[in-house]
Amino acid sequence: MKKLAVVALGGNALLKSGQKGTVSEQEENIFAACEDVADLLDLGYDIVIAHGNGPQVGNVLLQHEAGFKEFGIPKQPMDICVAETQGSIGYMIEQQMRNVLSERGVKKDIIALITQVLVDEDDTAFKNPTKPVGPYYTEEEKNKMNEQGWKFQEDPAGRGYRRVVASPKPIDISNWKVVETLARQGNIVITVGGGGIPAILKKNGKLEGIDAVIDKDLASAKLASNINADAFFILTDVTNVMVNFNTPEQEKLGSITIEEISKHLADGQFTEGSMAPKVRAGIQFVENGGKETVITDARLLKKEGSGTRIVK
Amino acid sequence: MKKLAVVALGGNALLKSGQKGTVSEQEENIFAACEDVADLLDLGYDIVIAHGNGPQVGNVLLQHEAGFKEFGIPKQPMDICVAETQGSIGYMIEQQMRNVLSERGVKKDIIALITQVLVDEDDTAFKNPTKPVGPYYTEEEKNKMNEQGWKFQEDPAGRGYRRVVASPKPIDISNWKVVETLARQGNIVITVGGGGIPAILKKNGKLEGIDAVIDKDLASAKLASNINADAFFILTDVTNVMVNFNTPEQEKLGSITIEEISKHLADGQFTEGSMAPKVRAGIQFVENGGKETVITDARLLKKEGSGTRIVK
Repeated sequence: MKKLAVVALGGNALLKSGQKGTVSEQEENIFAACEDVADLLDLGYDIVIAHGNGPQVGNVLLQHEAGFKEFGIPKQPMDICVAETQGSIGYMIEQQMRNVLSERGVKKDIIALITQVLVDEDDTAFKNPTKPVGPYYTEEEKNKMNEQGWKFQEDPAGRGYRRVVASPKPIDISNWKVVETLARQGNIVITVGGGGIPAILKKNGKLEGIDAVIDKDLASAKLASNINADAFFILTDVTNVMVNFNTPEQEKLGSITIEEISKHLADGQFTEGSMAPKVRAGIQFVENGGKETVITDARLLKKEGSGTRIVK
Repeated sequence: MKKLAVVALGGNALLKSGQKGTVSEQEENIFAACEDVADLLDLGYDIVIAHGNGPQVGNVLLQHEAGFKEFGIPKQPMDICVAETQGSIGYMIEQQMRNVLSERGVKKDIIALITQVLVDEDDTAFKNPTKPVGPYYTEEEKNKMNEQGWKFQEDPAGRGYRRVVASPKPIDISNWKVVETLARQGNIVITVGGGGIPAILKKNGKLEGIDAVIDKDLASAKLASNINADAFFILTDVTNVMVNFNTPEQEKLGSITIEEISKHLADGQFTEGSMAPKVRAGIQFVENGGKETVITDARLLKKEGSGTRIVK
C-alpha cells in the first residue's frame, strides 16, 4: 500500500500578501503550489489537500458588506462565507492540479469536496471570540451592529473596530471515511477548506451552521489522524521552524520530538496566529499516533528529510 | 441493484422569488426540498442531486460589483462565481439532507462535490451570448465596461443594460465516474451545481475557466446519461408540463413519447427560459438511452406515475 499524506496549504500561498486577488494571480500561485504538491506522487504518496482561506474569506466578507449596503442583499454568516471559499478555492486547486498532472502525463481524478467540521456549542472559545474577520468599522457602525449580537475588538493600530468570531476546536470532520477511501484509491482529494464549515449538533439532533472560524491546521491534523495518514505536511513560507528568531542564536529546527518542540512552544518561541498554531497542529497529529509532521516550504516537498520534522 | 436517480432542483426552489435570500429562508426551502427528494429512497432509488443557482449567482455578481466599487476587490469571472455558489448551495443541501435523514433514522453519507463542466471553445453560443447575468447598468457604465470585452443587452423593460454571457452545450462532466460509484454505494451525491463550472480545454492541453453559464437541466441530463441513471427527475413548481397553457384547451401532459413532446416543443408550446429547456433536457436524456424523464413538482416525487413522464 502506498503512503498517505495530508498536505495543508496556507490561504496566503494562494493569494499572496500585496496581491489584489485577481484570477490570474491566484491561478498562477495555485499552479505553482500544485506543482510542488504533485512531487509527493513521485515519493510514493497518495494525497489529500487541505487549504486555508484567510485572504479569500476576508474578501467575501467585504463583498457581502458592500452588497448589503448597495443592493440590500442579506449578509451571510461565516458558515456560508467559508462554504463559498471552499467552492472557489477548491475549484481553482482542482483545475490547476489537473493541469499539472496533464503536463506530467499522470492520469488521476482530482475531487474537491465540501466539508463541514463539527465543533462543540459549549467550546469555551465561544465565550471569548478572538479571531478578527471582515472590514474595519467606525464606532458608530459598530454600535449599530452590536445589536445583532456581533462582538468587536478595537484595532490596536487605530483603524477602527473589527468583528471577532470564535475559533473553536474541531471535533469531527464530515465524510472523512469517504476522503480516505477516495485517496487510497489513488484519487487526489481536496477537503477541509478554510478549516471546514463550522457546524454544531443541536440538542434536537439537527446540524446547524455557526458563526466561527476553525483553525485550518488543527482541522487538517484531525483529518490526518482520522484517515491514518502516514505524514502530515504543513506548508508555509519558510523552510524550517526557527527558535530564537531574529537573534544571534537563531536556529533552524530539523527533526525534533514532540517533547522538545512542546518546550519551545511553552517558552513562547513561536508567534501566535502564525507559527504557533502550525506547531500545535503538528504536535497533535503525532500525539494521536501519526508518524511525522513536516513543516516546510512547498518547494522542499520533493526533498525527503527537509524542513522541520516533528516525531514521537 | 437499486435504481439510480438524478434529481435536478431549480435554483428558484432554494431561493424563492420575492425572498431576499437570508440563510433562514434558504435553509427552510432546502429542508423542504430535501424531504421531498428523500422520499425517492423509499421508492428504492440511489440519489444524485443536481441544482440550479440562478438567484444565488445573481446575488454573488452584485456582491462582487459592490465589493469592487467600495473596496477595490477584483470582480471574479463567471466560473469563480458559479464555484462560490456550488460551495454555498452544496453545503446547505448537504446539511439539510443530513437533518432530514437523521429525523427519519436513515444513515447515509451526503457528499457535495465541486464540478467542472467542459464546453467547446468553438460553440456557436460564444458568438451570440444570450444569457443575462448580474446587475443593470446605465449606458455610461456599460460603455466603460465594453472595453473589457463584455457584451450587453438593453433591457426591454427599460431598466438599463445587462451583461449577457454565452450558454454553451455541456460536453463532459468532471468526475462523473466517481459520482456514479459513490451513488451506487448508497451515498447521496450533490453535483453539477448551477450547471457546472464552465471550462474549455485549450490547444496546449490546459483547462481554463470561461465566462459562461451552462443550462443546469442540460448538464444534469448529460450527467444522468453518463452514469446510466434509471430516471431523471426535473423538479419545477407545477405538477405537469402543459400544452395550450392559459387557453380553454389547456391540457396536462402525463406519459408522453419523445416524438410527441418534440412536436409540441417545435410548435412553441413551451416558454423559453422556463419550461422549454427542461423539456429539451428531458428529451435528451431519453434519446441517449435513458428510460424516463419526469418533470414535476417536488411534492409529487413520492407518487410514482405522477407528473409529465417523457419516454421513448
